[in-house]
Amino acid sequence: MDYLGNHLLVELYECDARKLNDLGKLELVLGKAVRISGATPLKTSFHQFAPQGVSGVIIIAESHFTIHTWPEYGYAALDIFTCGQTIDSQKALDYIEKELDVKMVSVTEMKRGNIRFPIKIGKTSPKVGVC
Amino acid sequence: MDYLGNHLLVELYECDARKLNDLGKLELVLGKAVRISGATPLKTSFHQFAPQGVSGVIIIAESHFTIHTWPEYGYAALDIFTCGQTIDSQKALDYIEKELDVKMVSVTEMKRGNIRFPIKIGKTSPKVGVC
Repeated sequence: MDYLGNHLLVELYECDARKLNDLGKLELVLGKAVRISGATPLKTSFHQFAPQGVSGVIIIAESHFTIHTWPEYGYAALDIFTCGQTIDSQKALDYIEKELDVKMVSVTEMKRGNIRFPIKIGKTSPKVGVC
Repeated sequence: MDYLGNHLLVELYECDARKLNDLGKLELVLGKAVRISGATPLKTSFHQFAPQGVSGVIIIAESHFTIHTWPEYGYAALDIFTCGQTIDSQKALDYIEKELDVKMVSVTEMKRGNIRFPIKIGKTSPKVGVC
């Protein structure tokens, strides 16, 4: 099937807690990850929470990178949502994992925007044959 | 199980194409949806593409709302990622559907950040009894 977007929902566990609370570091890492992936950054926005935690977003020409961190759990939620066939999300993810000293990672990949939706069924449905 | 975040991945199909290409309208709608949900907006960033399409992000104290639109397909990818127990994502979604004249919607709900991860197994694992 044909989709418009590819979305990686990434759980980063057992990260370096200090890095997860360092807005400057996270902005650098996410920015470089965007470039490594081959995406085009358009707008960057980060926010530092008190007493801890950072949220960051980079809108790219191909959708977005976002990160939300919970240093107290050593956890960050990362999203890499891209469209087109040229972006290497895995390369960006590998770089982020290395930079944040991630020990465990869980990735869910979702396709976004089925361009054939709604799918018409009826005349073209496969028939069940009787031998 | 206990999770830090709740993420709605929403496919909005057969929307009003003109509204999907109207940055001002989309910024108003997403901003109001944030307030309707009870979330706290922190930073807003939108971008208009040529010849068409808009990307928008609102960082909220509870994570983020994002939207990416493809007017040529009448489609938008909406994400409502929240933490805490007080945000009403469904109310926000109902409002957005109404405002963008959405005809068909598909929602996938994902939990983010298992705070018991990694789950320890062993001593507490259920035993298989032999009768």
